[in-house]
Amino acid sequence: MERRAMILFAHGARAASWVEPFERLRALTQARLPGVAVSLAFLELMEPRLPQAVAGLAAAGVTQLTVVPVFLGQGGHVLHDLPLMVAQLRLDHPHVAIEVAEAIGENAGVLAAIADYCVGAGKPA
Amino acid sequence: MERRAMILFAHGARAASWVEPFERLRALTQARLPGVAVSLAFLELMEPRLPQAVAGLAAAGVTQLTVVPVFLGQGGHVLHDLPLMVAQLRLDHPHVAIEVAEAIGENAGVLAAIADYCVGAGKPA
Repeated sequence: MERRAMILFAHGARAASWVEPFERLRALTQARLPGVAVSLAFLELMEPRLPQAVAGLAAAGVTQLTVVPVFLGQGGHVLHDLPLMVAQLRLDHPHVAIEVAEAIGENAGVLAAIADYCVGAGKPA
Repeated sequence: MERRAMILFAHGARAASWVEPFERLRALTQARLPGVAVSLAFLELMEPRLPQAVAGLAAAGVTQLTVVPVFLGQGGHVLHDLPLMVAQLRLDHPHVAIEVAEAIGENAGVLAAIADYCVGAGKPA
């Protein structure tokens, strides 16, 4: 039986407050994907890290995993670190089909929404 | 005469490709705020840094400046580094009224658009 999961993959930070919008995003996404287990994982500074999160999902029988890089810019973390990690994870968990989505900053709808917010912030009060 | 400007303040990265969505965001925002000079500035690793960008705008006669933190999470960079920099910039440029908007990740419309993208990425092809 196919079991689907999604990981929202974010950078991580020292300040606990940093994660709050990512938790809201996870809840918003989970509410609209009831058949998919949606969780957060981090590159550094916060837990769980991506390999730990994927190992947990694999142990729970997940067979289809989508990783969404919740990064606006595609720099070394998205273009270098993440592909290396995913290549290793595919070797470690051959029964999990791991797909990596484009980074959120590549999506026109996301950029349009950020532009909407900036435009609102720039208008005289 | 009032002269308005907006700075989209982002982290910066080593990889030049990282900045591309921020440049698209700047263009989208500028197109809808024709009376406001919209530019990018960075915390680190890319130029111009925020103090340099503000100095240039002040020298050009800008009197009203809105800084939008293009950060999803509010960690040390947004909660600590940016307020310290802005306090110094207000001392250095007393004729520029500097307003700091909420970080983009605090905006419900932005999070909804990211959730839309994640939901699309999580649906079976």
